Amino acid sequence: MTDPQHVKGNRLDPWLDNYAARAHGLRASETRSLFAVAARPEVVSLAGGMPNLKDLPLEELAEATATMLRKDGGKALQYGNGQGLPRLREQIPEVMALEGIAADPEDVIITTGSQQAVDIITELFIDPGDVVLAEAPTYVGSLSIFATYQADVQQVPIDAEGVIPEALEERIESLERQGRTVKFFYCLPNFHNPAGVTLSEERRPRVIEICRRHHVLIVEDNPYGLLGFEGQTYTALKTIAPDDVVYLGSFSKIFAPGYRVGWAVAPPAVRDKMKLASEAAILCPSSMGQYSISTYLEQFDWRAQISEFRGMYRRRRDAMISALEEYLPSCTWDTPDGGFYVWLGLPEGLDAKEMLPRAVTNLVAYVSGTAFFARGRSGEDHLRLSFCYPEPEEIREGVRRLSEVVARDLELVQLFGPAHLEPSPGVSAPAPDQI
Amino acid sequence: MTDPQHVKGNRLDPWLDNYAARAHGLRASETRSLFAVAARPEVVSLAGGMPNLKDLPLEELAEATATMLRKDGGKALQYGNGQGLPRLREQIPEVMALEGIAADPEDVIITTGSQQAVDIITELFIDPGDVVLAEAPTYVGSLSIFATYQADVQQVPIDAEGVIPEALEERIESLERQGRTVKFFYCLPNFHNPAGVTLSEERRPRVIEICRRHHVLIVEDNPYGLLGFEGQTYTALKTIAPDDVVYLGSFSKIFAPGYRVGWAVAPPAVRDKMKLASEAAILCPSSMGQYSISTYLEQFDWRAQISEFRGMYRRRRDAMISALEEYLPSCTWDTPDGGFYVWLGLPEGLDAKEMLPRAVTNLVAYVSGTAFFARGRSGEDHLRLSFCYPEPEEIREGVRRLSEVVARDLELVQLFGPAHLEPSPGVSAPAPDQI
Repeated sequence: MTDPQHVKGNRLDPWLDNYAARAHGLRASETRSLFAVAARPEVVSLAGGMPNLKDLPLEELAEATATMLRKDGGKALQYGNGQGLPRLREQIPEVMALEGIAADPEDVIITTGSQQAVDIITELFIDPGDVVLAEAPTYVGSLSIFATYQADVQQVPIDAEGVIPEALEERIESLERQGRTVKFFYCLPNFHNPAGVTLSEERRPRVIEICRRHHVLIVEDNPYGLLGFEGQTYTALKTIAPDDVVYLGSFSKIFAPGYRVGWAVAPPAVRDKMKLASEAAILCPSSMGQYSISTYLEQFDWRAQISEFRGMYRRRRDAMISALEEYLPSCTWDTPDGGFYVWLGLPEGLDAKEMLPRAVTNLVAYVSGTAFFARGRSGEDHLRLSFCYPEPEEIREGVRRLSEVVARDLELVQLFGPAHLEPSPGVSAPAPDQI
Repeated sequence: MTDPQHVKGNRLDPWLDNYAARAHGLRASETRSLFAVAARPEVVSLAGGMPNLKDLPLEELAEATATMLRKDGGKALQYGNGQGLPRLREQIPEVMALEGIAADPEDVIITTGSQQAVDIITELFIDPGDVVLAEAPTYVGSLSIFATYQADVQQVPIDAEGVIPEALEERIESLERQGRTVKFFYCLPNFHNPAGVTLSEERRPRVIEICRRHHVLIVEDNPYGLLGFEGQTYTALKTIAPDDVVYLGSFSKIFAPGYRVGWAVAPPAVRDKMKLASEAAILCPSSMGQYSISTYLEQFDWRAQISEFRGMYRRRRDAMISALEEYLPSCTWDTPDGGFYVWLGLPEGLDAKEMLPRAVTNLVAYVSGTAFFARGRSGEDHLRLSFCYPEPEEIREGVRRLSEVVARDLELVQLFGPAHLEPSPGVSAPAPDQI
């Protein structure tokens, strides 16, 4: 039936010529190929960011879900409100209150995980070529979204106290001089993914003052804010400047990610546009997910559950730090006081991306630092270690295995220099005793 | 803190100048304002497309969900595979087999309702200004998505046998002559929303042949295909031309929409890109929703449930058609043999959009035909009546109320001509006895 004159695309993809410009930027993220690897049971995965759900009271949740379905099943199985279930929008401010944030239920938009909120915000604000400011490094999942919308992601250095205000302002001013449009600053102020650091209280008003002065919207992504290991919380940017911040929250780390329920709190005009964009994309978030979470918040002691999570993750953090001190003193890190991650600096000359296959061969997985930088812009001198999911003894063993790989790579670097670590395709690296 | 030199936007929205071009096309859909109206209990809503869930076995579903959570809760509450739960991807082809469609689980991508699948397809294929072909009328939710991606939606006439092949080819050729890029044809072949008609078996290969010849991808949206009132099904476009069709399916109408689980089956290269785009947007579909549906397909007689739905909707269709015959013989319609909708043609001179407030005042709601056309392009001579949700006696009463409104509008048209139906803002229409 096909007219050969009209054959287009290629053998593998007849539709190749039909894609939108944005589709050509889609690539598998670096973390993704690792999910497959991490699934092998003999590998200790320090790669994934899956929360540890072992402590959730499954039996009670099963009962409560069944009771909810008997009572509200007709609504929980039906389409719902595009902005989210009103009852849950009333409850979300109670969660935010734990961090001292005041939110009006009217300004809450419930999303399919906070990932969808980042997607919508980017859809609403970014024309191809517009600038998104982000921290260096930043969350890999948001980088995928920014790439899809063809944003120019400009990453600003951070240190142990979070983003460096002077560097932020310098970058904005330099972009302004070039006539570039900076649309928003995407920021993870608490227990940063992947850097593990927290924006200091002292810097928060300065960051806001800079963004305000340059009319840059702040997107405050805060999935880990309630997971401070000592129960500590920090002043939300949203609290300091409600009109200048779109705040993103999530139930994925303080309850469970399987419902895919997150939320945004936005200034009213932005909220209205977000609601329309979300309705266009998915009609409404899952009623079943929202009823389940609303039931959980109503019937369970979720504050005590969060405290339990804090202790559980603190013990894992402790296991990781003590293993690092013992096995990897040649590396550098800032000890996180909350969240899921350690951002590990490698000894000079090592390359995290290149080392990864050797690590996996040695049955330990991590994410190369390069995943957290917009395409082609460094990060190879760091890697992300997650301590959220494995047991403390597995974490210890994982770090030990990693230390073997680091030691071997380091030996090669010291003998032959960094170049020898990357053999050309198809050519074996010479064995050390051949030289 | 704000420097007045940098104040931008306006008082209502300080971020007004920051939005992307696509954000300015976002408007509340015409159906949406009606959801609020339809919620008033005294109004008979023939507007919404909510499935009727009264026949679902809630007690048994509650039990099965609880058992699933006890057994698989650790996985159902966790992040999952971006393409969807493998077990559910194995089950979906069993559902599709009822319509004679062969699908490889590898080619199935699970989405947040089939709405998200339309969103992803549009994201992947549409650059601003690219042409999407659709039927005239077409599904309002897809029109919202096409608007978001700044597509030029070109609608092709349909009749009682679905889209008219000659009109389709003529439109494509005319666009080609203008040098326009036609990216895909979005088609609802079965029990059309809103038109109620089905693409005839005779036309299906012709439509495919035309699209193939012009290298136009077909997006086959099929949420109602299993709801033929006599149990009849039709040959899927996907069956005739697997490489040229992205097929969309949904559990919303054959089970329940509250889980927000739909799916796409796409040629491998398109499938890979859809998977990446979905991961960027939401990481993964809800594990809880997928485990729940997988459990339902495994443990319940879902085929019998679909048969039950068919009978239930057939009885409602019968109630609507007999009421239309009795109360609205001045209108025109094609009697649907499946699905949820009747597309009602109004007597000459009446305007469905204008008449709506009067209908709501008379306690009946519908959707104006204008909602199903890309912005500003007709449809005012039709309206969509849904028979899916109300009880048969409510449907009858709704049609009776509508007939009163139609009769009054018709009387005005006959007395004064169509212009008098739309009084200027703030000026009352003259009472008939004043003229």
